Amino acid sequence: MKNQKRIRDYGITIGSLKTGKLNAITDVSGVRVGHVTLDSEKAKTGVTAIIPHDGNLFREKLISASHVINGFGKSVGLIQVDELGQIETPILLTNTLNVGKVSDALIEYCLKENDDIGVKTGTINPIVCECNDGHLNHIRARFVEKEHVFEALNNAQSEFLEGDVGAGKGMKCYGYKGGIGTSSRIVSIHHAIYTVGVLVLSNFGKKRDLIINHKHLREKDDNENEKGSIVFVVATDAPLSSRQLKRVIKRVEIGLHRTGSFMGNGSGEIVVGFSSANRLHHYNDEDSISIKILNENRIDFLFRAVAEATEEAILNSMITANKVIGRDGHEVKSLKENIHQYL
Amino acid sequence: MKNQKRIRDYGITIGSLKTGKLNAITDVSGVRVGHVTLDSEKAKTGVTAIIPHDGNLFREKLISASHVINGFGKSVGLIQVDELGQIETPILLTNTLNVGKVSDALIEYCLKENDDIGVKTGTINPIVCECNDGHLNHIRARFVEKEHVFEALNNAQSEFLEGDVGAGKGMKCYGYKGGIGTSSRIVSIHHAIYTVGVLVLSNFGKKRDLIINHKHLREKDDNENEKGSIVFVVATDAPLSSRQLKRVIKRVEIGLHRTGSFMGNGSGEIVVGFSSANRLHHYNDEDSISIKILNENRIDFLFRAVAEATEEAILNSMITANKVIGRDGHEVKSLKENIHQYL
Amino acid sequence: MKNQKRIRDYGITIGSLKTGKLNAITDVSGVRVGHVTLDSEKAKTGVTAIIPHDGNLFREKLISASHVINGFGKSVGLIQVDELGQIETPILLTNTLNVGKVSDALIEYCLKENDDIGVKTGTINPIVCECNDGHLNHIRARFVEKEHVFEALNNAQSEFLEGDVGAGKGMKCYGYKGGIGTSSRIVSIHHAIYTVGVLVLSNFGKKRDLIINHKHLREKDDNENEKGSIVFVVATDAPLSSRQLKRVIKRVEIGLHRTGSFMGNGSGEIVVGFSSANRLHHYNDEDSISIKILNENRIDFLFRAVAEATEEAILNSMITANKVIGRDGHEVKSLKENIHQYL
Amino acid sequence: MKNQKRIRDYGITIGSLKTGKLNAITDVSGVRVGHVTLDSEKAKTGVTAIIPHDGNLFREKLISASHVINGFGKSVGLIQVDELGQIETPILLTNTLNVGKVSDALIEYCLKENDDIGVKTGTINPIVCECNDGHLNHIRARFVEKEHVFEALNNAQSEFLEGDVGAGKGMKCYGYKGGIGTSSRIVSIHHAIYTVGVLVLSNFGKKRDLIINHKHLREKDDNENEKGSIVFVVATDAPLSSRQLKRVIKRVEIGLHRTGSFMGNGSGEIVVGFSSANRLHHYNDEDSISIKILNENRIDFLFRAVAEATEEAILNSMITANKVIGRDGHEVKSLKENIHQYL
Repeated sequence: MKNQKRIRDYGITIGSLKTGKLNAITDVSGVRVGHVTLDSEKAKTGVTAIIPHDGNLFREKLISASHVINGFGKSVGLIQVDELGQIETPILLTNTLNVGKVSDALIEYCLKENDDIGVKTGTINPIVCECNDGHLNHIRARFVEKEHVFEALNNAQSEFLEGDVGAGKGMKCYGYKGGIGTSSRIVSIHHAIYTVGVLVLSNFGKKRDLIINHKHLREKDDNENEKGSIVFVVATDAPLSSRQLKRVIKRVEIGLHRTGSFMGNGSGEIVVGFSSANRLHHYNDEDSISIKILNENRIDFLFRAVAEATEEAILNSMITANKVIGRDGHEVKSLKENIHQYL
Repeated sequence: MKNQKRIRDYGITIGSLKTGKLNAITDVSGVRVGHVTLDSEKAKTGVTAIIPHDGNLFREKLISASHVINGFGKSVGLIQVDELGQIETPILLTNTLNVGKVSDALIEYCLKENDDIGVKTGTINPIVCECNDGHLNHIRARFVEKEHVFEALNNAQSEFLEGDVGAGKGMKCYGYKGGIGTSSRIVSIHHAIYTVGVLVLSNFGKKRDLIINHKHLREKDDNENEKGSIVFVVATDAPLSSRQLKRVIKRVEIGLHRTGSFMGNGSGEIVVGFSSANRLHHYNDEDSISIKILNENRIDFLFRAVAEATEEAILNSMITANKVIGRDGHEVKSLKENIHQYL
Repeated sequence: MKNQKRIRDYGITIGSLKTGKLNAITDVSGVRVGHVTLDSEKAKTGVTAIIPHDGNLFREKLISASHVINGFGKSVGLIQVDELGQIETPILLTNTLNVGKVSDALIEYCLKENDDIGVKTGTINPIVCECNDGHLNHIRARFVEKEHVFEALNNAQSEFLEGDVGAGKGMKCYGYKGGIGTSSRIVSIHHAIYTVGVLVLSNFGKKRDLIINHKHLREKDDNENEKGSIVFVVATDAPLSSRQLKRVIKRVEIGLHRTGSFMGNGSGEIVVGFSSANRLHHYNDEDSISIKILNENRIDFLFRAVAEATEEAILNSMITANKVIGRDGHEVKSLKENIHQYL
Repeated sequence: MKNQKRIRDYGITIGSLKTGKLNAITDVSGVRVGHVTLDSEKAKTGVTAIIPHDGNLFREKLISASHVINGFGKSVGLIQVDELGQIETPILLTNTLNVGKVSDALIEYCLKENDDIGVKTGTINPIVCECNDGHLNHIRARFVEKEHVFEALNNAQSEFLEGDVGAGKGMKCYGYKGGIGTSSRIVSIHHAIYTVGVLVLSNFGKKRDLIINHKHLREKDDNENEKGSIVFVVATDAPLSSRQLKRVIKRVEIGLHRTGSFMGNGSGEIVVGFSSANRLHHYNDEDSISIKILNENRIDFLFRAVAEATEEAILNSMITANKVIGRDGHEVKSLKENIHQYL
């Protein structure tokens, strides 16, 4: 966004469904995204924050689900999402060795917003996902500080940059620069219209495996071993139970594999999703509540939307990223330089 | 029931919650249970059918969940329950080597009731659970026939026998005769009153481990190795999503362990549960539906109910069962003969 | 095989790894496959048997794993595979409503081979997977009988037919005839050479989604709703623990998605895998055993092999299948008629 | 230990198996435990470190497994344990809101010990588990600092204190002071002798549910709502695959339930286990490795050991803990004052 040239601008269209207005996860009403990018000689890293709705998320939780594709990853907060089917904090993305610090900063942020936590009510479940940007970033230094996290949260808005920004600054995808990418789809299910948005932090794969526009060029790789990962965040306003949402977010794998992935051993591949259609109140005093869920016979529409948006989000994360030269002179080229071969 | 002397009749009360009227799974409105018992020199086996509601279950499905405690078992139908959170057939219990035949008979029963299956609509997911009654029953003979299954289904009613009946005929529990047992609890959650019922098919454990009434006598065992299992069926009218129901039915383990179980390697321990509060229509033409679910902050009440009812159901399965002499002269005593030691 | 024209014979090569000699699951030493095909006016169905090794599988079990991609399916036996990581019977494939009968026949077959089962030792865990061939086959009739199962088991050999044979007779894939397909890959990991074989029973998808040879033609579909499924059987001689094997067989999804799948709601997508590298003896009297497992850092080689073999197996299942006219005049065309468009 | 009066010293014996020399998790050779306790007017909290072996754990990993009993918890590191079946850092216990800081400190500790991490090889997966000590501790202050973590790790030894120490300082169990407890069992399996040790951080339950010595007194509770949790760490020298180990550690539930637990909604109940029998080398250059695993037919011995040691560890965590008066004058009594009622 923000005048970046995205994959569609090269004439490459993924799937058959319409995109939302921004073709971004923020097409789901209420969702905002913020970045902080650390870019110095040694630091090529950052934080990206996805904020699910405009209210107080701890007090008005959303139905959520997570799915582990390949669990060689260090994300935090997913156990409770699985048990309770709820999300109560923004989702933060960063690099692997910074998860502890970022998770602590997110706790602090939530404590400030909620003075009942830990005193009058229970604790909070921060959600932080990660990829290893160690090829470009001096990851041992753990450059990300508390203030960066607050800044990313406060920065969040509907329009945001993709590519080598935020948590994506140092990532590498199919041998090219990767990072943050997003896309969305509009789904018409008989009388209802729903939006599905996907944001990825891409950091996996070999050049020789990349498929774009049904072209598989089997390019030659450099010698760097794959130690990558990919994180997917899925948002929708479709009414879904946690079980249904888990089924929906599993379909990111379709989009992932269409781009050429082999889900490598060392790749932490994690999905977190939420639906904004029902709000669950922390201080609810009723015995039972009514929630709206999708007629499961119609769920295929959402499967298709997630698959298409994921494939496009991955390609957007690459095509919008610029060449980066990082630690020890490691250089990762931009797909922009080679995209003509795929047209 | 039906004038059988149950564990409460010996002055042993499990937990603190009130039971339902029959103290049985059938206290949950609409639930019925039917048995067929095969009792000849070689055959000590049978079928027990649990029918979740009075209507056409294929057309009006219930929210369901399953949980595998120890998966050394051969139950069928649980994969789909896990994926869709729905149940669409009665639940049948029988012995291990008869699962194929019983499952085929259940398919036939459902085809007769629904002439659209396999022609105008999809197929059907039969649910059959099992224990190995091979100590008393000549299990290789697979005595159960299609007609027995139909009979058990047609027999089903609110009041039913416990102990060495139906699928419980040849089962053995803590070295004593086991089999079918049931119990229920009434839960008052602020303004709402819900019923939780549990039925077990018990077939596990060693005498030396049995705990009743807080007494652990460490009785001596015969030499028979444990090859047992236990199946739990949980019914409730509390409004629960499939995820919530899965949490609730996991608490059968509490009741199980209070009786002395060690969840042996060879024990297939499986739970299937359903909630009758919401009906899901097979031919639904709406885009979305409203379902009622419990305020999760109140779910502890149900956890306690399931735990108590399970412990009591296991003890009922033993105390109502008579001594049985089965194949090759194998004899299994009734707990009735020894219960005085536990009073 | 057997002179059938397969996808490679049309000049379409999947991936970069070498295939085994037969390019079939039976390239894994000891594996055999047998079919019985029922082909009459109303019956378009059958049974396919995969036999993991030449010995007595109950006495010498193999390490095994299963994985549920989409659980709208009725396979039996997977709970125990998950718990124990072992397989002790052949794997049978058939249609959905015949699973009970086929599973009973498999029990009978194993009882005949092992007179200790149910008497001196425990029971047996039959593995039967299924797809719904109801578009072409009069599935309510459940045509498959015990003798057909025995015949398929006894038929099993290294060379076998693909396409509209065995359990594949009535299946439909991407709007074309589907059914049985297979492929294999040879993996060189430094000093070791391993074989990975995949067999599929394909029965899912819409024409408009089919991708072959990087071509996505978006063909028009007939009106038939998708009620499909796909079963994958993965065999390897690579030494793997059950956990490792589960990771390996999950990669069938890569091959699946490369052909265009969206993992539809109604599709039961199930994988069963086994490794022939270690044998686990039923009557083992040692306290502990030594098993060989793969250096996990080398596992990517197997991931790639499974992905490639799966994609090719799906395409083979289609390209080898002939046009079939089934119940109520339903006709499903062969991909052979249209393959030129994809070349 | 260290002259603390433990549950056995009151004449209460759990189960029938022998304990190890110290009756502690450190009876498993190589295991050490260290505490840091923060005890001021506002701070009632700390850190407990469990070190699996004396070498460099990143370079010589152990086979590991985790199990979530009730996932209302914020532990980190378990996703990777599930995927790879390996542990590569010590296990740290602390309070809920300190998980981020403690996890970051553990990363720093491991980076110092391994200068290849993040540069020449991948990253590290820190394992931190937690309970909410907010009733006694001013949890929002997050008192635990990096130096405390290093101190706990450096403190670690075979003999260690139980009760209100380390991470256990502010915990509450069944209405009494809880905290750190441990126990062990010696298992003789035919020719082999193995040790199983359990350490718990206890922080759950109501007085009215407590069962000790088969006595259930149904004591009256104060009004404090249950927001508790329990963490279990299981160590053994028995040779187990990750799958086997997962089966073994699930049996902590038996011990847990024997003490009276109902696994409350708000209780994060998590188990982490490791086996020291096989070491997995980070820089392994072989294609495959041999590992020793248990004959699964003998695994019941370990199930029983874990169950017994867990029950005793929970009781030890309570009986060794002293009365604590914490934030806002909250006072939690010691079980010592009431234990006579249970004798």
